[in-house]
Amino acid sequence: MALTANRYGKERVRLVRVARGAGRHEMRDLTVRVLFSGAYAAAYDGDNRDVLPTDTMKNTVYALARRETWSEPEELAGLLADHFLAREEKLAQVEIDVEERLWTRVEVDGAPHPYAFAAPRSERRTTRVVAAKEGTQGGERRVEAGVAGLALLKTSGSGFSGFRQDELTTLAPTDDRLLSTLADAHWRYGAPPADAGAAWHAVRDLLIDVFARHPSRSVQHTLQAMGDAVLAARPEVDEVRLRLPNRHHHRVDLAPFGLDNPDEIYVATDEPFGIIEGTIRR
Amino acid sequence: MALTANRYGKERVRLVRVARGAGRHEMRDLTVRVLFSGAYAAAYDGDNRDVLPTDTMKNTVYALARRETWSEPEELAGLLADHFLAREEKLAQVEIDVEERLWTRVEVDGAPHPYAFAAPRSERRTTRVVAAKEGTQGGERRVEAGVAGLALLKTSGSGFSGFRQDELTTLAPTDDRLLSTLADAHWRYGAPPADAGAAWHAVRDLLIDVFARHPSRSVQHTLQAMGDAVLAARPEVDEVRLRLPNRHHHRVDLAPFGLDNPDEIYVATDEPFGIIEGTIRR
Amino acid sequence: MALTANRYGKERVRLVRVARGAGRHEMRDLTVRVLFSGAYAAAYDGDNRDVLPTDTMKNTVYALARRETWSEPEELAGLLADHFLAREEKLAQVEIDVEERLWTRVEVDGAPHPYAFAAPRSERRTTRVVAAKEGTQGGERRVEAGVAGLALLKTSGSGFSGFRQDELTTLAPTDDRLLSTLADAHWRYGAPPADAGAAWHAVRDLLIDVFARHPSRSVQHTLQAMGDAVLAARPEVDEVRLRLPNRHHHRVDLAPFGLDNPDEIYVATDEPFGIIEGTIRR
Amino acid sequence: MALTANRYGKERVRLVRVARGAGRHEMRDLTVRVLFSGAYAAAYDGDNRDVLPTDTMKNTVYALARRETWSEPEELAGLLADHFLAREEKLAQVEIDVEERLWTRVEVDGAPHPYAFAAPRSERRTTRVVAAKEGTQGGERRVEAGVAGLALLKTSGSGFSGFRQDELTTLAPTDDRLLSTLADAHWRYGAPPADAGAAWHAVRDLLIDVFARHPSRSVQHTLQAMGDAVLAARPEVDEVRLRLPNRHHHRVDLAPFGLDNPDEIYVATDEPFGIIEGTIRR
Repeated sequence: MALTANRYGKERVRLVRVARGAGRHEMRDLTVRVLFSGAYAAAYDGDNRDVLPTDTMKNTVYALARRETWSEPEELAGLLADHFLAREEKLAQVEIDVEERLWTRVEVDGAPHPYAFAAPRSERRTTRVVAAKEGTQGGERRVEAGVAGLALLKTSGSGFSGFRQDELTTLAPTDDRLLSTLADAHWRYGAPPADAGAAWHAVRDLLIDVFARHPSRSVQHTLQAMGDAVLAARPEVDEVRLRLPNRHHHRVDLAPFGLDNPDEIYVATDEPFGIIEGTIRR
Repeated sequence: MALTANRYGKERVRLVRVARGAGRHEMRDLTVRVLFSGAYAAAYDGDNRDVLPTDTMKNTVYALARRETWSEPEELAGLLADHFLAREEKLAQVEIDVEERLWTRVEVDGAPHPYAFAAPRSERRTTRVVAAKEGTQGGERRVEAGVAGLALLKTSGSGFSGFRQDELTTLAPTDDRLLSTLADAHWRYGAPPADAGAAWHAVRDLLIDVFARHPSRSVQHTLQAMGDAVLAARPEVDEVRLRLPNRHHHRVDLAPFGLDNPDEIYVATDEPFGIIEGTIRR
Repeated sequence: MALTANRYGKERVRLVRVARGAGRHEMRDLTVRVLFSGAYAAAYDGDNRDVLPTDTMKNTVYALARRETWSEPEELAGLLADHFLAREEKLAQVEIDVEERLWTRVEVDGAPHPYAFAAPRSERRTTRVVAAKEGTQGGERRVEAGVAGLALLKTSGSGFSGFRQDELTTLAPTDDRLLSTLADAHWRYGAPPADAGAAWHAVRDLLIDVFARHPSRSVQHTLQAMGDAVLAARPEVDEVRLRLPNRHHHRVDLAPFGLDNPDEIYVATDEPFGIIEGTIRR
Repeated sequence: MALTANRYGKERVRLVRVARGAGRHEMRDLTVRVLFSGAYAAAYDGDNRDVLPTDTMKNTVYALARRETWSEPEELAGLLADHFLAREEKLAQVEIDVEERLWTRVEVDGAPHPYAFAAPRSERRTTRVVAAKEGTQGGERRVEAGVAGLALLKTSGSGFSGFRQDELTTLAPTDDRLLSTLADAHWRYGAPPADAGAAWHAVRDLLIDVFARHPSRSVQHTLQAMGDAVLAARPEVDEVRLRLPNRHHHRVDLAPFGLDNPDEIYVATDEPFGIIEGTIRR
C-alpha cells in the first residue's frame, strides 16, 4: 500500500548548557525535538540505507551545542536545521522544536548569585524552526517563538453574555466573572529579531499586559486583543497563534448553609474545560 | 488584524452510561471533545450572538446520550455531529472526538458478573467524526476509529542495521534487539462498518498480531507492515495513520562487575525516545 | 542541631529482565527503590566515609539481577536486602520496594507467542521487604506484597445511608449508587508463601471477587469485607492494608432538558475524592 | 478480623477565595485535604451512624472559608480542625492539609494591577495542622508549614568524594559537580508565628540562600546546613524535615566526536534519582 506521509525523529533530548564565565555562570535548560520528513519510503520497506539513526540526532544536539557558538534557543534550532539539511540528501523538511525551562537566578545579600538558580516559572519558552531544502515547495524557513503553559487569572474585568441560547443552554449570562486560562501562544517572525531573548520577553510581557487590561466580553475577544497587540507592537512578528483554555471556576452555592457568596468563594475545576483557538495575521 | 483560523469547543466531557438490562448492566466510560469552526469572527470582536456556549456543548453531550439510541462511540459521535450541524448556522465544520476506557467485566464463580467491572486496559479506544456543512469545501464526513496508548514489546524478532552513519553516529547495528512502543493507530473508514465494535476489535487485534509476527528491520518497517495488514484485511478501511515511539531499552554493561549480559538485563528509559510516524493509504 | 531521622537511597531504578528459554522468553518489567537508614549522621556533617553512593545501589540492582537466581520480585527484593545488610556496617534497616508492570503475552493463531507482549494492565504488582540488622529493635524481616492502582467499579450493589448529618450536610442517602475506586492493597506475609506469584494472583483475584459480590453499605464496609476475606482464605497473610479512594460519579440532572435520568447518565469526576483507609489484622 | 488502624476523609478540595477590597483584590488558590481518625470501627461493619460524609467535609471547607475570618492558610486549617474536633464525638484526631498555589500579581505601567495575576511559581506553600481531642494521647496540636516542589540548582559549589566504595562502585569522586534538587521542606512551629505569611517567606528564602552559599560535600551535608540555618534563625521553629531528591545531570562524553566537554554540556535525567531525607530538631 502507499505511504503518503512520513516523519521520524527524536523527542525529549534534554540539554543543560553551563557557560562558565569568570565570576558568573549562565545556564540554559532545554528540551529538544528533531523531526525529519522526506524521501524515506525505502525505510518502510526495511531498507535503512538513508536512515540517520535517531540516536545520531541526539548526539548531534549535544555535539553542536558544544562545538557551535550560540546564545538563544532560536540560534541552536537554526544551527541544527542547517546541519541536517546540508548533509541529509533525502531530507525535504526538518522541524526543530526547543522548549526552555526558565530558572530564576538566586539573590544573596541583595546581589545575584554567580551560579545558583531556583524556582523556575511554570511556563516554558518555546522555539520552532521548520526549514526545507531550497527548491522544495514551501521551501522558505519558518521561525517561531512562543510561550507554553502561561497561567493567567483575573478576578474581574471579564464577562460573557449575549450568546446564542438553545433549549439545552443553562449557562447564565454574566458581566463579571473570574477568568482563568493556561495560555499557549506561538508567533512567527518575518525577519527574526536581532535579539531573540529581548523580543521573547517583550511579547510575553505584552500578552500578560493585554490579558490584564482588556475589558473582556469573551475568551475569543481577549484572544483577538492579545494577538492584535503583539502584531501592532512588534513589526518583526507576522502571525500569532493562541490557544486559551477556559479553566472554569464555579461560584459555590452557599445558600443551603444560610450564607451568601458575593463572588468570593469559588471551586476551581480541571475538567471539562472550554477551549478557544485563533490565528491572527497581519 | 485578520483572524485567519479559529476553533472553539469543550474538552474532557466525561460521560459514563449504564444500560441497565435485566440481569446485566452494560457500561461505557467515555471522554468527549467537541470543536466548532466556522464563521465566528464576530465573536473575536466581542459579539457573542452566534456563540453557542461550550457549557451548552457539554449539556448536549449528556442530553443526547440519554435521549438518542446509540451503542458504539461512533454512533454517539455521529449523532452529536448531526445535531450541531443541523442547528448552528455559522458552523462550517464540527469535530467530535470520543475516547473510551476499556473495562473488563469481573468473573465470579466462572461466570460474568452482572454489574461489576475491573482493571481496565491501559490503552483506549478512540473515535473521531469530522463533518462539514454540505456544499462546504471538503464537505464529506470523515469517520475514524483508533487505539491510543497501546503498549507493545518484543524481546526478539527485531533488528536495526545498514543505516546511514556519519561522524556523530555511535549506535551499533544489531540484528536482534528488544523493541518496545506505545502505539497510537488511527484508521479512516470509507464506508463505516456495520458493527463498529467488532471492526475495532478486529483491527486492534491485527495490529498486535502483525507487531508480534513481523521480522522487523526497523520501526518504519514494522509500521508499514501493520498498516498494510489492516488495509489488506479490512476493505472498509481507507487509510491508517500510525505513530510508534521507540521506547529504548539499553542493555546494561555489566563487564565492570565481572559479569556478562547475554541480552538479559536491560534498563528501560522514558526519554529521549525515537518517534516514527507514517500514513498508509489504499 | 540534632539529626533525629535520616534515610537515603535510590528511586526509579528500572529493570527489565528477559529469561531466554528455548522457544519462550519470560519477561519481567520492574521498578526498584532502595532505602538505607542507620548510623549515617557523619554524612550530614560532610564526612562521606560510610556513604555507599546511590549510584552503587543502582549498579547492585542490575548486577544482582544478573548474578543471582530469582524468579519472583519478592526473591529479588530479599536478595538485595540480604546483600546490603551483610556488607554495610552502618546500615540498621533497609527497605526494598519493587513494582511490576504486568504485560499480557500475545496470542497468535490461538497459541501464546514466544516473545511478544502487549497491553499491560493499568494496575501494578508490588513487593516490599523491610529488613533490619539482627539484634536491632524491630529486627525481624517484613515481607509484603500488594497491588497498586487496581481500578474497580460497580453499577449496583452499593448504598450509603444512615450517616451522620449536620447543618452542612447536603448529600442525599441512597441505597443504590455507582461505586468506583482505584484500590491500593498491601498485605504482610507471616511466613512468605512457597509460590509468591500464585499467592499474589489469588489475593488479587479475591479482592476483585469480594468487591463484586459484597452488598456494600459504605466504602468502609467493603474495605473490611475485602480484608477479612483475604485473611480468611490465606493463612500466610497476617495483615492487610487497604486504601480505597471514592471516585465520585454524579448522576447528571437532565430535568432542565425535559429528560429523566433513571441512573443511566453519570459524570465521572477526578476531584475532590473521598479517601478511606484501613488496616485489618488477624 | 480486627481493624487496627483507620482513617477517612476528603482530598483535593479546591478553593479559590477572592477578597474584593476597594481597588484591589486579594486572591488565594488553595487545595485542602481533611482526614479523620477515631472510634469509627462500626462503619467498617456497615453502621454509618457516626460517619460524617466526606461530602459534608467538602461543604464545611467552603462554608467556613466564607463564614469565618481568616487570612493565612494556617488559620483556615486551624479553624477547620477546631470545627470538626468540637462537633464530632468519635473523632480522636483530625489532619488538615492545605497547599497553596502562589500567583504573581501582574504589573501594568509599573504598578500592581488590582485584579490580574499570572505565572504562578512551580513550588507550592503547604500547611498542616494535626489536632487531637484533649486528653487523647499525643493530644497537643501540631502546626507545620512547608514548601513542596521547590526546584534548586547550582552549577558549582558542590562535590561528592571520599565515599565508601565496593566492587560494584563505578561512580568517580568529584569536587565540583552540578547539583539539582526538587526540595520538599516542612517545619513544625513550637509557638505558631504571629505573621504566618512573613514567617513562611523568611524560611523559604533562607532555604534557598543556604542552598546557594553552602560549600556542599554531599546532599546530606547541604540538608543539615539548610535545617540548621532555619532552626538558628527562627526560634518559633522546633523541627525541620527535608527531602532532597538528587536529580542527576550527567556530563555528556563528547570525546567520540573529537570534542572536549569542560563541564559545559549535560544531559538532565528524571530517573533513576537519588533520595536524601533528614529531620533536624532543636
